[in-house]
Amino acid sequence: MQEQTFSITRLERERLNGHKGAVLWFTGLSGAGKSTIADELEIALHRTGKRTYTLDGDNFRSGLCRDLGFTPEGRQENIRRLAEVAKLMMDAGLIVMTAFISPFRRDRDFARQLVGPENFFEIYISTPLEVCEHRDVKGLYRKAREGILPNMTGVGSVYEKPDRPSVSIDASKCSKAEAVELILMTIRELIPAGQDRAV
Amino acid sequence: MQEQTFSITRLERERLNGHKGAVLWFTGLSGAGKSTIADELEIALHRTGKRTYTLDGDNFRSGLCRDLGFTPEGRQENIRRLAEVAKLMMDAGLIVMTAFISPFRRDRDFARQLVGPENFFEIYISTPLEVCEHRDVKGLYRKAREGILPNMTGVGSVYEKPDRPSVSIDASKCSKAEAVELILMTIRELIPAGQDRAV
Repeated sequence: MQEQTFSITRLERERLNGHKGAVLWFTGLSGAGKSTIADELEIALHRTGKRTYTLDGDNFRSGLCRDLGFTPEGRQENIRRLAEVAKLMMDAGLIVMTAFISPFRRDRDFARQLVGPENFFEIYISTPLEVCEHRDVKGLYRKAREGILPNMTGVGSVYEKPDRPSVSIDASKCSKAEAVELILMTIRELIPAGQDRAV
Repeated sequence: MQEQTFSITRLERERLNGHKGAVLWFTGLSGAGKSTIADELEIALHRTGKRTYTLDGDNFRSGLCRDLGFTPEGRQENIRRLAEVAKLMMDAGLIVMTAFISPFRRDRDFARQLVGPENFFEIYISTPLEVCEHRDVKGLYRKAREGILPNMTGVGSVYEKPDRPSVSIDASKCSKAEAVELILMTIRELIPAGQDRAV
């Protein structure tokens, strides 16, 4: 079968954008601060002209994965699709952030291999369970303790910590701005020297 | 439940890019020239600094939709996911091209509604069946006539022509360059006046 090969490749898009595409895979407990830090990072990247996108439960589970439940199989398929879409968006030249609990090492390793280890940054938001549960911004931990959410990560279901994350950030011990600085240091290879100032 | 609202929206990304995001939905028979024209269009858009991406069977079916078959249900789910991913990429500020046969009006109408009619351009590559079958670049029509591919669109399965496509192009009657010019005229509202020259 003849396959169509497209003329405009990731490399051309990266040249046009002035930075590399990549996947910044946030992982951590519910309430750890993944989406909040991803948002702050995206503001900083956008301000300096970087092309970005953030995939999270709101724009992902409600659309592409609306057919999936929260069974182990449903969660695994959710992460598989997330990795596939992140890969496509990276191929489109974007710095893609994903903000999902993604509690299982196996799923994150799958994503890393699919995307390519050289393009994959595992950003572990390591805020302790006690802090996340105390905040309980979505009221999920309370429901979990009441037995309404039996598979809640950190309560009824395990969170497997990353072995060697690209960066590890305890959001209870630093400001949002400090977290963003740490991540920008971690991904500086994506951005040519001298192009990190506001445009 | 508290939902994270991200600060950088489609509007900010479009401002940074200097053009609107949109979905250009190519439809037509196998061999009609969808991918070829999409590729030529992408070259022209990229040359003038537009941020683009093309989704086609090669990068889509082999990844995100590898779990789907070619049954009616599988094809419908494939188109649903395609529309969802195209919508995400449009939200990321890109001009997204999709190059799939997408033979059923119902599926294309679903995509149009999901993406938003104001963002959706239906590009009908109307090359006649005789021409597509004579070319038969993938050898699929021969297989269909031999009964090996019973659901081949145009042979064993119907192709439902668009009622009111944004543009209709018979690739057997015009050059690739002419096809691209027609599409650029059709989508000119995406691109601010004066920004259509090479950068």
